[in-house]
This record gives sequence, structure tokens and C-alpha cells, in this order.
Amino acid sequence: MLDVVPASLAARVLGTFGEALGRGDVAAASAMFVEDCYWRDLVTFTWNLFTCEGRGQVEAMLNSQLGQAAPSGWHLAEGETVSEDGGITTAWIGFETATGRGYGLMRLRGDKIWTLLTSMVELKGHEEPKGIARPMGAKHGAGKSRTTWMEEREAEARTLGYTTQPYVLIVGGGQGGIALGARLRQLGVPTIIAEKNDRPGDSWRKRYKSLCLHDPVWYDHLPYIKFPETWPVFSPKDKIGDWLEMYTKVMELNYWVKTTCKSARYDEVAKEWTVVVDRDGQEVTLRPKHLVMATGMSGRASLPSFKGMDSFKGDQHHSSKHPGPDSWRGKKAVVIGSNNSAHDICAALWESDVDVTMVQRSSTHIVRSDSLMEYGLGALYSEQAVRSGMTTEKADLIFASLPYAILHEFQKPVYDKIREVDAEFYAGLERAGFWLDWGADDSGLFMKYLRRGSGYYIDIGASQLIIDGKIKLKRGQVAEIVADGVVLDDGTHLAADLIVYATGYGSMNGWAEELIGRDVADKVGKCWGLGSDTPKDPGPWVGEERNMWKPTQQEALWFHGGNLHQSRHYSQFLSLQLKARMEGIATPVWGMPPTYHKG
Amino acid sequence: MLDVVPASLAARVLGTFGEALGRGDVAAASAMFVEDCYWRDLVTFTWNLFTCEGRGQVEAMLNSQLGQAAPSGWHLAEGETVSEDGGITTAWIGFETATGRGYGLMRLRGDKIWTLLTSMVELKGHEEPKGIARPMGAKHGAGKSRTTWMEEREAEARTLGYTTQPYVLIVGGGQGGIALGARLRQLGVPTIIAEKNDRPGDSWRKRYKSLCLHDPVWYDHLPYIKFPETWPVFSPKDKIGDWLEMYTKVMELNYWVKTTCKSARYDEVAKEWTVVVDRDGQEVTLRPKHLVMATGMSGRASLPSFKGMDSFKGDQHHSSKHPGPDSWRGKKAVVIGSNNSAHDICAALWESDVDVTMVQRSSTHIVRSDSLMEYGLGALYSEQAVRSGMTTEKADLIFASLPYAILHEFQKPVYDKIREVDAEFYAGLERAGFWLDWGADDSGLFMKYLRRGSGYYIDIGASQLIIDGKIKLKRGQVAEIVADGVVLDDGTHLAADLIVYATGYGSMNGWAEELIGRDVADKVGKCWGLGSDTPKDPGPWVGEERNMWKPTQQEALWFHGGNLHQSRHYSQFLSLQLKARMEGIATPVWGMPPTYHKG
Repeated sequence: MLDVVPASLAARVLGTFGEALGRGDVAAASAMFVEDCYWRDLVTFTWNLFTCEGRGQVEAMLNSQLGQAAPSGWHLAEGETVSEDGGITTAWIGFETATGRGYGLMRLRGDKIWTLLTSMVELKGHEEPKGIARPMGAKHGAGKSRTTWMEEREAEARTLGYTTQPYVLIVGGGQGGIALGARLRQLGVPTIIAEKNDRPGDSWRKRYKSLCLHDPVWYDHLPYIKFPETWPVFSPKDKIGDWLEMYTKVMELNYWVKTTCKSARYDEVAKEWTVVVDRDGQEVTLRPKHLVMATGMSGRASLPSFKGMDSFKGDQHHSSKHPGPDSWRGKKAVVIGSNNSAHDICAALWESDVDVTMVQRSSTHIVRSDSLMEYGLGALYSEQAVRSGMTTEKADLIFASLPYAILHEFQKPVYDKIREVDAEFYAGLERAGFWLDWGADDSGLFMKYLRRGSGYYIDIGASQLIIDGKIKLKRGQVAEIVADGVVLDDGTHLAADLIVYATGYGSMNGWAEELIGRDVADKVGKCWGLGSDTPKDPGPWVGEERNMWKPTQQEALWFHGGNLHQSRHYSQFLSLQLKARMEGIATPVWGMPPTYHKG
Repeated sequence: MLDVVPASLAARVLGTFGEALGRGDVAAASAMFVEDCYWRDLVTFTWNLFTCEGRGQVEAMLNSQLGQAAPSGWHLAEGETVSEDGGITTAWIGFETATGRGYGLMRLRGDKIWTLLTSMVELKGHEEPKGIARPMGAKHGAGKSRTTWMEEREAEARTLGYTTQPYVLIVGGGQGGIALGARLRQLGVPTIIAEKNDRPGDSWRKRYKSLCLHDPVWYDHLPYIKFPETWPVFSPKDKIGDWLEMYTKVMELNYWVKTTCKSARYDEVAKEWTVVVDRDGQEVTLRPKHLVMATGMSGRASLPSFKGMDSFKGDQHHSSKHPGPDSWRGKKAVVIGSNNSAHDICAALWESDVDVTMVQRSSTHIVRSDSLMEYGLGALYSEQAVRSGMTTEKADLIFASLPYAILHEFQKPVYDKIREVDAEFYAGLERAGFWLDWGADDSGLFMKYLRRGSGYYIDIGASQLIIDGKIKLKRGQVAEIVADGVVLDDGTHLAADLIVYATGYGSMNGWAEELIGRDVADKVGKCWGLGSDTPKDPGPWVGEERNMWKPTQQEALWFHGGNLHQSRHYSQFLSLQLKARMEGIATPVWGMPPTYHKG
């Protein structure tokens, strides 16, 4: 068989590596990495999400963490093939630590480790009750005054938050809070999800009516229950809302609707939060041990403060408050901004016979959805990937195994290809006056998302409207807002009955400021971004998303969120970190960066 | 490789068989079967569910059906292994007909066909939009006055049944109606499901509170969305109710709650039903082309007419109306009957400190749930089966491939084994006076279910209560009901505050009588049962479940139902039969039996 040689090589390297770790020989273990190596650890060694970059960082991490991790049982994963391509040998691996079971992906350059991903699968003795270990449901045998599943669920709903306290309070019940809540439930961590809306899924339902997911279905599965094969590629917003609502119900989450968190305070002595919430008009004080902000990775809406905004006679609102085009049929609208929301809103306004102008203030990266699916996601997340045996879980780990520090190098060829195949499309946009970019280093959409979470539009049709002049386009800065419209810095006056500020969002720690206070928000610093020192992602380099899904400088405060992919994947690691703490397992964190970028 | 020889044999036989069929040579094709063969066809050749028993029936069927079926492309299924065991070679096969694509299982004895299963997968040109063909969801590009998914769903819900007519009306929204409705939706067949309860799932929720499914989770999946790995083995009734409710929503079924069908009449000229329904107090007249009774395979409750029932001073009701034990704590109850419901109700009453006596009027077959799972279902429906690569769909087809005429021979060894391993349990029951049986020919539970749908208890604990005397047991017939209890034919007087008649159900055509009239019910005859000439399954032998999931003597009237397994599996074939008719595809039915057992 062709793979005998790579498999032998991988087995030998892994065996030697495991032996070195087993006898505590950090020098020998570190020497097995190439100098410019990357070891990304998700919770197994570091109790953190941390990428060791270079052999020196590997050695430093192991010197600190090896004793408590006490890894053993390194082996090539069963049922997977070791592959070799261009001198790189790639192998799926399994192992254990003192407290957990891990899975990962190892890439060798020659006979040395180039990249290593180690990820926590489960905590020993605290495995999820699934598959062969699933609950019985029916209680066989008989007993006096037994309670039923329904009675137990009702009793839990009645008491949790009142006579008993949740271990975790999740603020925000979108996909992030729901995915995390589902995993915590399976791990037996008492959790309440507090959501301001009336129904699970409303954070999608309440957005503008033509909204559909920009990511395709294969990328969007939640944990435990996958979308059926009949599910649309790009789910309409109300349909994803219904799915989240049913998921919340059948996964038995303690999901408090119509609930607003009013204040939160951490008692450093009692190691407990005091959170005052308004639950449908009733004030309830919760005392969770951990607080998770899952209020959307985008943070609070950034409403700009242009001169003269108060004088405008028409309707004006942030894109997050835009109700859709229906009220402005036959009227004039100006949309300030040129990213995803701006494009979607402009297209919907045009479709409803609104005279709409987009004001582009800075360059924007555009990728056609079809091209992004084909060249950007297709290998991991597509029907073809499914047919070739790729699973969502494997795809997530392959993606996670690519170190952030070199990810842009993997991304550039994708966008070079897209630029080539869609050349005519981009030429048309430029002819229409659209100001294009391809990211700071031509690395395209996904790096922009990871670095700043903004600066792009995944084209599902609005670009053609711009090319055709149906959505009017103006480049420039806003000089002022006047009673009947917008004045740009070149003197252009744009008449408007409606102004939509599609001006983006702040950092997630803004939510912490609002709920807990400025001091805690500053202690934590900016959320999201890698420190790439590219626009809107200031350095220094930290090599992981700042403050996301991992410990922060504020004890017992966590941030969770992102798209459906990230909500699914990272909820696994956040839930295991929380479960370990609940069970009193020691969790010595390695590689906590200092606070950067306050406020 | 070991399977080279069986695979060559199977390929050769299938090739020769396909060639004979291809040139219309019925004699040659029939001669390829052993004399005592079985060919079970699900819709592909017969537009029926029909088992040809013996070479003569194969020949007769082919003489009638081969021309229109025009099968071609017979091949061994990709990715499956041909196996050989004890002289029997087993192979998965694929083929086409003039109108559809088929899949099946062939067993050879030597080089002749012993059993053949042919099942319809899809109609050509009418494939389900799934996988690579799933809908886009988002409508890329832009257009004036486009409608959204939500607007289209709302418009459909508003108009269907009023300004537009459903092609199919399904009466009853339990698992049968829901599974069929989901498949019809995917096939684009406009369908309304009429359900009398307030919410989907209520037919489970409204039963006695301790009820859990008696079948394990692996056997219970619905089409399209499988239960997650975390789902309990035996789902509590309220939990399965919630699942059905969410399924109905996310599969976008037109599910009318609080809707009672009052009358139905078929116009033989217009080929259309007129069905008057009460929808939440409003009378609506529907004109579907097809009517499906999915009101429960058990038919209407059979309330006995014992002497003196009117004189009873306490509470009395059929088991289907039993609300659970709570109102009778500290009191006395008598349960007439000794099958599943009787046992469950007795156990729940005992648990709530009710003094309960079971009256056993006839012998009952008992199997411990654990043993049934291990020996009866384990090879096809279990966690072990999943781990060994068995899928629900394959398991369903393997099960379907065992001809009803010889199924009892496959079943007997299972129950011989159970009798052996649970010998002490059965001895205990006999010591307690329980009257046991093992089915007419010792073939056990599943044959009883298929033949009569009754006569057994899957033990989840009540039997031990009987062994221990906690549930009191009396054998005998009811002589009369008196003011304060029950008198048996041996003169025993059983004092009672509550009498539960766990006396079973009638045939499904009783529902047709109620809704349409006695003439149609008689025209159709008895539903369910194989004609095995064993107790409650009178002959003559018909070799398939009577009137279930296939054409009946009443044009455009269908019966659908059964457990979750049957609701899942047979909804595939019923949906394809209905879709073919909607599309005007010729559906010449072979092997329609005359009416048996009226009323």
C-alpha cells in the first residue's frame, strides 16, 4: 500500500515524542520539532487556547505544563490514513493527559514536527452521556413515587435560578449561547441562558426580511443535531430562527426569554457573580460561579456622530435596527457603509423601488458567494466534501490545525484564483467606481474576518446592482447630515428620506462595560483579533483570537461567539474549561497575554 | 480477498437475470429462482407491496408487470460487500425501471435466487431536493418585489385548503402522519395533516404519565432528521412529543391542529374526496384527490360491554383514556387485561400507592426489554450495530427482505434463546400464576405484533411487581361489574374505586367507517394482519400487512401507521405511490387481494 511509509514514519515520530514526554524529557521532546514549528493546543496542555510558535515556545510551555498534563498513550488515530504530500506527512493522532482525552493532527516536515494540533475531547470520568452511554430514558423496574422526565424538567425549570443556582450564566441566547448551553447541559453543568427576546431564534428573525445566512449549510451545523440533507444551502433568517428554537427545546436548555441582565458584580472572595436580571418584568438575582458573554462577537452597534444628525427630518437608524424596506417604497435612501449589511440593505431597498445610494467611505473586499464556496470552503465544507468522507468534526479540526501565523499564506492562493476566475466581475465593479481591496496582504475574506470581523461583502447579488447602476454609488466621507439628506466632503448633496448607518460594531468587551463596568472592560481589553497589525487589528501579535473562548484577565468572565462554525467548534473547548472548574480539576493556565487595547 | 467468489457469483447471476428481463424472457428470468423462492416488491414492479411466493407467482407477476416496469441497469451496489454464509450468498443490488430507481437485497441459494427484495428509491425526474440538489435558500441575484421564504410559507399556510386544494389529506398527526407528511413535502405533493389535538406530539403527551417508548431509539428515527447521540434509549412520552412538534415545524408541514374530520365522501367521477373538517370551530370543506387514514394502527378503542357496567359507582375508562394514577392514591383499582398498557398502568398505580389487581383473561407473551434489545433487535438496531457500520436505512431493508411467510422461522431461535437466558424470570411469573405464551408457533413478540398487533408485554419492570405480588394477579373472565367492583366467573369479588379496561383496539377500517361510512369500511375490510390463521389474525394468507401503505379496494383511500419504524420505512413507499399518481405516471397495480373480514 502507498501509505505504509508515511504511516511508519508518523508512528515512529509519535512513539519517540510520546516516550520523551513520558519520561519528562522536555529537551528531547522539543528537539523533535522543526525550528519554525507551531503547536496549537486547545485546552489539553495549556488549559487555554494557545499556539506555541517556534521551538523555544514549545520548550517553555512544556517546562511549565508537562508535569500536570502527564500525557500518555500517543497513537495514530484508528481508521484514518496517514498521507504525504510535497514532503509533508499528515497524521491524525490520539492521546491522553492526566485528566482528559485528546485528539489532534500532526504534520511532519521530514522526520520533524512542523505543526501539531492537540485538542481536548473529554474529561476522564466526566464523559458526555451519548452513544453507548446515553441515558435509558425509561426507568426500568418500579419504585414508589418515582418522578417522570417531564416532572423533573418542570421542577428544574421552577427551581433553577430561585432555590438553586446555575453554575454558569450565559448572557445572550443566539447561536453562541445555544451551542454552549447544549454542551454544558450534556456535561451536567447547571446553566441558564438569558435572552432579551421573546423566543429563541428572534435575534435572527428580527433582522431585515431578506437576510439569509452568508455561510453555507455544511459550515453551520450545531453540535449534536445536524441539519437534514434537505436543508437549504443558505438558510433564510426565519428558518434558522425556527431551527434554533426547536434545538433549544429538544436539547432541554434552561433558556430564559424576555430576560435582560441589568448589572453584574464579581465577588473575588466568594468566587461568585451577583447578576441582577429582569425576567419578563420580575427582578431575579442570580449567583453563578461563571459568567459568559455570548452577546454577539460584533459587540455593540457603532453609531457614528456626524455633524447635524439631530437636524435630519427623515428616518435614520443603525443597520442593526433596520426593519427592511417596506416603509420607504418610492422614496430615497442613503446607506452609509459598504460591507455586508450595507449591501444587503441596499439590495432589498432597490428591490422595493426605493431610490438608494451607497456611500463608500473606505475600500471593501468583495467575494462572490459561489466562488467563496467553491474555492474557499469546498474542500472542507461542501456536498463534495461530505461525499468524499469529510465530517464536520474533522473539517473543524483541519481548519483549527492551520496556525494563525501562517494562515494567510494558505489563503492567498484561494483569492488569487478567485481574482482570476471572476476578473470580469471585479472589472465591472471598478468601472462602477467601487473601491476594492483584497485584505492587508491580499489574503482575502477569512483573514479579514479573523482579524477584524469586518471589511467585506460576500456577494449574493448586490454587486451586480452596483455594476448596473441600480444601487447608486458615491465614494467619499460624510461632511454632515442636513435636514433633507447627506452632504459628502466633495460637496455632493444626497437627498434622503431614510439614512441607514451601516457603520459596524464595537468590541465585545463593550458588553462587559455595559453590564459590569468600565474597570472590568478595561481589565479584559479588546476582544477578537489576532494582533496582526493590519487595519482594525492592532498589534502586538497574540496568535489566537483575543479573549475568545478562553480565560480572560477577569476571573470567571468569558466571551463566546462568532459565526455558526465557531459557535459549534469553540463551545466544545469552553464547555470543557467550565466543566473542569466545576469538578475542581486543577486548570493551570499557560500563556495568558497581558491586557491590550482597553475600552 | 475472501469475498471474490461470492461477488463474482452474485454479479453473474444478477447479470443473467437482468439480461433475461431486458429481453422480456419471463420464462428464463423465472427459472433463475429456486422453486420455493420469495420476491418481495415494494412499488417497483407491482405498484404495490407484494410478495411473490414461489416461482409460479414470480412468473405470473412478471407476465403482467415486466413490460411496464422495463427494468434495466442491474448492478451490485457500490461500496457494499457480497457475503456468503451457510450456502447463502447475500448481495445489495441497484437497478432502474422505466419510471424509477430501485435498491434491493438478493439472497442466492447456490446459483439460484432464493429471496429478492426490490424497493423504490425515487421516481425519475421527481427526485427529492437533497444533498447536492438541496434548495439554495437565499435567492442570489436581485429582483423587484421578491418574496422571502417566510412570506411564501405564510402565503401557503393561508391559502392551502381554502383557495388551493391539497392533493393529499392525512387524517391524524401522530408519527405516521408526520413522517408521511414530511416525505410528501419533499416530493412537492401539497398535503394537509389534520390533527384533533392542540399541538403536534399531543397524542403521546396525553397518555399516562409514566409512559415511555417500548422500542429503543435506534429503531425509532424519523426520516431526514435522526435523534442525536444523546437521546435516551427509551424516550419518555413528553420528550418524544416535543421532538414531533419541532420536527413538524422545521420540516415545514401544513399541520392543522384542533381539527376534526367530520365526514368524507369520494366522488368516483371527479376522482376527488369531499371532506368536511372542523378547524378550531370553523367548518372547512377540503377536496383532496387522496385520503390517508393515519389515525393509529390500533384502530378505535374496544370498550367491552360487561353486564352491570352502568351500575359501577367508581371511575371506569378504557386504557387509552387513563390519565395516570394520581387521583387514586390509597384506593383500589382493577385493570382488565394483561398486555402492554395493562402492565404499564398497573405498575404506575402501584408506584402511587394504589392497591391494584390485574385481571388476566387470556395468555400473554412477555419479553424483558433488555433481552428483546439484545437478542431481537441488536444486530440491526443498537449502538453496536451503528458502530459496525449499520445504518437505519440498511437495517430497514434487511428487515424488509425477510419474507413474512418464513419470518417466524427466523424469529423462533431468538425466543428460544430468550427463554433460556431468562428462565428464572419466567419461572417466577409462572409461580405467581401468570399465564404465559410464546405466540402461536413459539415465534415470539414481533410475529404477534405483525399478525395481530397485540398479545404481549415488553417488560420494563411490571413483571417483577407481579412476581413479588405487589401487583395482584387474578386469572379468569369477568362475570359482571357491580356497584363496588368486579366479579369474576369463579365468583371472586374484586373491590374497586377504579376500573381500567385495557381491552385493546379494533381494526383501522373502523376509522373509515366512522368518517366515510360502513359501506367503504366493508369494501376495504380488515386492516393489519398477514392472514396467518393464528389467534386474531384470520386467514386466508395474504403475505403482506392487509391494506397498509398500499392501494385498497376503495380508490384513493390509504391506511398508514404503525410504530416509529414502520412510520419511517413505509412512508417512503406510500409517498412514492401518491407522488406517481399526482404526476400522472401509470401505476398498474399487481396482486390486489379481494376484500376479507368486513367490519
